Amino acid sequence: MSIDIECIHRVLSSIIEIDDKEWEYFSGLFEVKDFKKKEILLHADTICKNIFFVNTGLLRIYFTDNNGRESSFHFVPENDFATDYESFLQHTPSKCYIQALEDTNVVIISNNVVLDGYKKLRYGEKLGRKLSEKYFILYCNKIHALYTLTPIERYRVMNKLFPYILQRVPQHYIASYLNISPVHLSRLKNEQD
Amino acid sequence: MSIDIECIHRVLSSIIEIDDKEWEYFSGLFEVKDFKKKEILLHADTICKNIFFVNTGLLRIYFTDNNGRESSFHFVPENDFATDYESFLQHTPSKCYIQALEDTNVVIISNNVVLDGYKKLRYGEKLGRKLSEKYFILYCNKIHALYTLTPIERYRVMNKLFPYILQRVPQHYIASYLNISPVHLSRLKNEQD
Repeated sequence: MSIDIECIHRVLSSIIEIDDKEWEYFSGLFEVKDFKKKEILLHADTICKNIFFVNTGLLRIYFTDNNGRESSFHFVPENDFATDYESFLQHTPSKCYIQALEDTNVVIISNNVVLDGYKKLRYGEKLGRKLSEKYFILYCNKIHALYTLTPIERYRVMNKLFPYILQRVPQHYIASYLNISPVHLSRLKNEQD
Repeated sequence: MSIDIECIHRVLSSIIEIDDKEWEYFSGLFEVKDFKKKEILLHADTICKNIFFVNTGLLRIYFTDNNGRESSFHFVPENDFATDYESFLQHTPSKCYIQALEDTNVVIISNNVVLDGYKKLRYGEKLGRKLSEKYFILYCNKIHALYTLTPIERYRVMNKLFPYILQRVPQHYIASYLNISPVHLSRLKNEQD
């Protein structure tokens, strides 16, 4: 098996059983691509036609408001998936951008291939359910944190969720992820040291 | 078919094909129950063992922070589902409360029945995937709104999502849902009239 698709094979196989024949067919439809640091993988207001699986590197998902102010919403490291699932499923304009924060190598799975996989893999629907559940729960927790946690509590949750974050992500993106100012973030970091 | 399970049959049948035999078996495992206004269906810090489908009435899902301050997170009217899916799936203590805002009649589907349904209904996994996707997208939009929309924009989105809300939900719950003060909500309402 090509080294480019070993990681995604391991991740998917940890969720459902996929036999060699299924894998050979399914993975033959993947594309592998490199993106340079700062490059945009998905633009807001375009239709999201792919799911991206990160082999190496790091992605950032962010929104912009009416004034063009960016809000970092999520970070996607190695062995994890990134997409705008609403746009992907419903063919509506994407609400978010996906950007490489480092030189990043991804497996690209197009809309047709994903929907084909849900139907044709023996446990395809289960895979879709499990992945949807995983991200659904992740986002529930994010909402819970935004509503009920103090900035220092959100900072601690973030460090558990993204243990690499302080080393790999610029501070202003982290501050915007936490919905606090960069000055406030700096104070929180000092308090933790 | 009992009138108590007609609505949920219609909703599930709009997502997947369920034949009469499957339905007879599956729905035979449902429970139907009345809750009085203000009654709690799920307490935070307990394991959520059920999914609730609202036949008539209205539910509120809310969090409390460390100071006991409540944040209304979501409203669940007729023909919709309520649960703490993370607690339900992972048997972890629930983060939220579910409360009846009106006298409410629900279909209760227990954890065993749901997981059994995913496995035994012909399209059970697809049903799980579609429902997870629906709520995943709903929560993505909520996060997007919290990060990028102004209070007046959030107010308009809420009115589209819950067209009954101003008539049926106490104002302080609506304000907390929008993450604004009741005074601010009152001003927004006046500006819209």
